[in-house]
Amino acid sequence: MTNPVTRLPVSQRSIEIARSMTDLARFQTDSTWARRCTEPGISDFTFGNPHEMPLSSLVNALQSWSTPLNKDWFAYKSSEQESREVATAGLRARTGVPFAPEDLAMTNGGIAALMIGIRTVIDPGDEVLYSQPAWFLYDALIVDAGATPVRVDIDPATFDLDLAAIEAAITPRTRVFVINSPHNPTGKVVPSETLAKLATILEEASARNGRTIYLLSDEPYAKLVFGGGRAPSPAEHYAETLVAYSYGKQHLAPGQRIGFLAVSPRSAAREEIRRSAFVTQIATGWSFPNALMQHALADLESVSIDLHHLRRKRDRMTSALRAIGYNVHVPDGTFYLFPKAPIGDDRAFAELLAKHDVFVMPGDFFGTPGYFRISLTASEEMIERSLPIFAAVYHEATALELSAAAG
Amino acid sequence: MTNPVTRLPVSQRSIEIARSMTDLARFQTDSTWARRCTEPGISDFTFGNPHEMPLSSLVNALQSWSTPLNKDWFAYKSSEQESREVATAGLRARTGVPFAPEDLAMTNGGIAALMIGIRTVIDPGDEVLYSQPAWFLYDALIVDAGATPVRVDIDPATFDLDLAAIEAAITPRTRVFVINSPHNPTGKVVPSETLAKLATILEEASARNGRTIYLLSDEPYAKLVFGGGRAPSPAEHYAETLVAYSYGKQHLAPGQRIGFLAVSPRSAAREEIRRSAFVTQIATGWSFPNALMQHALADLESVSIDLHHLRRKRDRMTSALRAIGYNVHVPDGTFYLFPKAPIGDDRAFAELLAKHDVFVMPGDFFGTPGYFRISLTASEEMIERSLPIFAAVYHEATALELSAAAG
Repeated sequence: MTNPVTRLPVSQRSIEIARSMTDLARFQTDSTWARRCTEPGISDFTFGNPHEMPLSSLVNALQSWSTPLNKDWFAYKSSEQESREVATAGLRARTGVPFAPEDLAMTNGGIAALMIGIRTVIDPGDEVLYSQPAWFLYDALIVDAGATPVRVDIDPATFDLDLAAIEAAITPRTRVFVINSPHNPTGKVVPSETLAKLATILEEASARNGRTIYLLSDEPYAKLVFGGGRAPSPAEHYAETLVAYSYGKQHLAPGQRIGFLAVSPRSAAREEIRRSAFVTQIATGWSFPNALMQHALADLESVSIDLHHLRRKRDRMTSALRAIGYNVHVPDGTFYLFPKAPIGDDRAFAELLAKHDVFVMPGDFFGTPGYFRISLTASEEMIERSLPIFAAVYHEATALELSAAAG
Repeated sequence: MTNPVTRLPVSQRSIEIARSMTDLARFQTDSTWARRCTEPGISDFTFGNPHEMPLSSLVNALQSWSTPLNKDWFAYKSSEQESREVATAGLRARTGVPFAPEDLAMTNGGIAALMIGIRTVIDPGDEVLYSQPAWFLYDALIVDAGATPVRVDIDPATFDLDLAAIEAAITPRTRVFVINSPHNPTGKVVPSETLAKLATILEEASARNGRTIYLLSDEPYAKLVFGGGRAPSPAEHYAETLVAYSYGKQHLAPGQRIGFLAVSPRSAAREEIRRSAFVTQIATGWSFPNALMQHALADLESVSIDLHHLRRKRDRMTSALRAIGYNVHVPDGTFYLFPKAPIGDDRAFAELLAKHDVFVMPGDFFGTPGYFRISLTASEEMIERSLPIFAAVYHEATALELSAAAG
C-alpha cells in the first residue's frame, strides 16, 4: 500500500469531512442562532424545517401502515417491489422518461440517494463539478468518496446555470456534474433550453474524455413548483442521468426518511449502475428506507404540503421585501428566497437581524457571500412579525455602511 | 492525483464490493433457495428473518409514537438527546461501563453502526482483522472504506477466539479488530478471560505500532443469551473499544431500523471519535435513525423476542440433531446453530436438504466450509417438519460419501 500510516486517532477522511463542514458546524453549535433557536417568539428562517404541526395525511399513513399484514412486515427490506412501483409511476408521470421499477434504488432519504449516486460512479481522485450557491453538504459527500469538489458560479443576473463556466471547468477527471433544479437556495427552475445545451456540453466532453460524465440530478423540490409550472428533469435531456429524489420536502418531514436514486433507462450503463447502486447501498450501512416508509409510500407518494399556502407566503414576503428596498428574485419553486444582503457582509447583516430575533442563513454558507437565504417553512406569524425588522435592519445596515464608507 | 482514470462505467470500488459479496449475491438471486423461498410448506433456516407475526409491543410502540407531540416531531433528527439517554441507560446497566449519552452515535441500524465505526478510524490501506466464521458483510464495509480485510480462524474445538492466530496476524497497518460476541453463526459467548487476554495483545501491539488498534465490538445479540447468562462486552476490558449495537435482533424487526455506535468513555480519543462519527454519519448519507424510531425507543429499549421460546427451539433442535448423529455445539446465545455438515462439502449437503424443502446456509458463506448455519427464527412447525429430513439426509449424505470413497 502506498498510503502512509497516520498517527491520528481518527481517520484522515473524517478530518477532511469535518473541514468541509466547518462553517455549518460552527453555525449549528456556536452561533447566535444555536444559542437561541429554541426560544419562543423568534422568527426562524434558517433551515427548511417545519414550523407547524406535521401533515395529518402523513401521520395517518404512518399509523395505518404500522399494522402488520404479514410476518415479513418488518423483515429485512432492500428496494421493495411495491415501493419501487409506486415511486416509478410518479417519476414517469412527472418526467415522461420510461423508468422501470428496477431502475430505482430506494434510499433512506435524499442525502443517501446523492451519496449512492456519487459512490456508484466515482473513484478516488475523480472530480465532481457543481454550481454555487449550493446546498452545504455536497462537499462532505464528495470528500467521503475520495473525490474532489470543483465549483463554478451560477449566472448572478438570472440564477441560471453558467454554461460557459461549466464547460471551462470540465477536465479529464470530471466524472459527475451535480445539478439541482428547482434550486436551493435561489428557487430557480433551470429551463429546458439550458438543460438541452448542458446535455450537448456533457456529451461532447464525455466523448473527448473517452469516459462518461454523469449528470446527478438533485431534484427533491421537483414537485414544489409554483403556478402550475413544471420543473423539467435533466433526465429528459441527457441519457447518462441519475435522479436523486427525496420525499422529505414534499412531506416537510425530513426526519421520516424515504427517497430514491433512479438511473435513466436510456443510460448505456443502466444494468451496471443498478447493480453498483445495490451493493453500494449495502456497503454504506444498508441505506434502504425503513419498512414502514416503504409500505406507507402507497399513500405518501401524493402527500404534499399546501403549495397555495406556500405561494401566498412567497408572494407576501417577496413583495414586502421589495417594497423595503431588497433586491430579491421571485423563486419558481422550492421553499426558499435568496435576496441580496443590503450590505456586502452577509454574516454581519445576519447578525444584525439576529439582534432583533430574526434568523436567516448567510449566503456565505452556500458559497455565495453577499446574499442570504430565507426558508418559507416559517409560519405566517413569523413572517408578519419579521417584516418590520427586515425594514429597520435594512436601513440600519445601509446607514452603517454609508457611515463606514464616509469615515 | 495518482489514481489512474478507469474506463469502467461504474466505480472501481463498487466492483470490489460486488466481488466481496459474490457468493451471497448468487445465493440471494440464483440458488434453489432464491427460486423457492416464498413457497409455502418449506422449512427456511437461512436468514435471521421473522417467520411469525411481529411483536405486538413493537407495533403498539410504532403506533403510539406516530402521533406528533410537537412541530419538530418529524423534523431533521441526528442523534437525539432522548434516544441517546434511553440507549445509554441500557448500555451502562448491561456493561457497567460509564458511557455518557454523548458517547452514542444513534444509527439507522447495526450495519450503519459498523460502517461508521470502521470509517471513523480507518484510512485507505489500513487492515481490518476479524475471526471467521463471520457475518458475510464485513468485507463489503471494509472494502468500501478502502481498507483490506484480514481473517483468522476461530478455535474449531471451542469456537472461542484463537488468540495466538490473532496476535500473529497483526501488522503495522492493523487498525481495527472486529469482535462479535455472542457470535454469529456459532452462538458462542466469548468469555471474560479471553477478552482480558485479547486486550493485553491489542495494548501491546498498539504500543509496538505507535498507533491505536481499535476493537470494534459487533454485539447485536448481546441481550440474546440463554439461561440467565450474560455476554461480557469487550468494552469492559479494553479502553479503545467501539460498541456497535442493533435493536433489530431483540425486536426481530430488521426492517425497522435503529442501533448505535458507542465510543468507550475510557478511550483516549473519546472526543475525537465522537466528532468523527458525527460528520461521517452526515457524509455517508445521514445515517441517523428515523424520527419515529428515536421517539419509540423509550418503549423499544426493553422490547424483546421471547428468550424462553427461543431456548426451547434451541434445545429441541440441538438434542434432535445430536440424536441423529450431527456434531453440534450448544450455543450460549444468538438465534443460530452451527453444526458440522455430515460430509465435507457443505454446499452439496445444503442442496440435498433443499431437495426435501429444507433450507440452510452453507458454512462456506461464513468463510468456514464443512459447517452449516440454522436460524432458529424458524417456526416450531418448520423445526418439527424438518427433523425427519435432517435425519434422512444425514444418512443419504454419509452413504453417498462412503460410496464415493469406496468408488
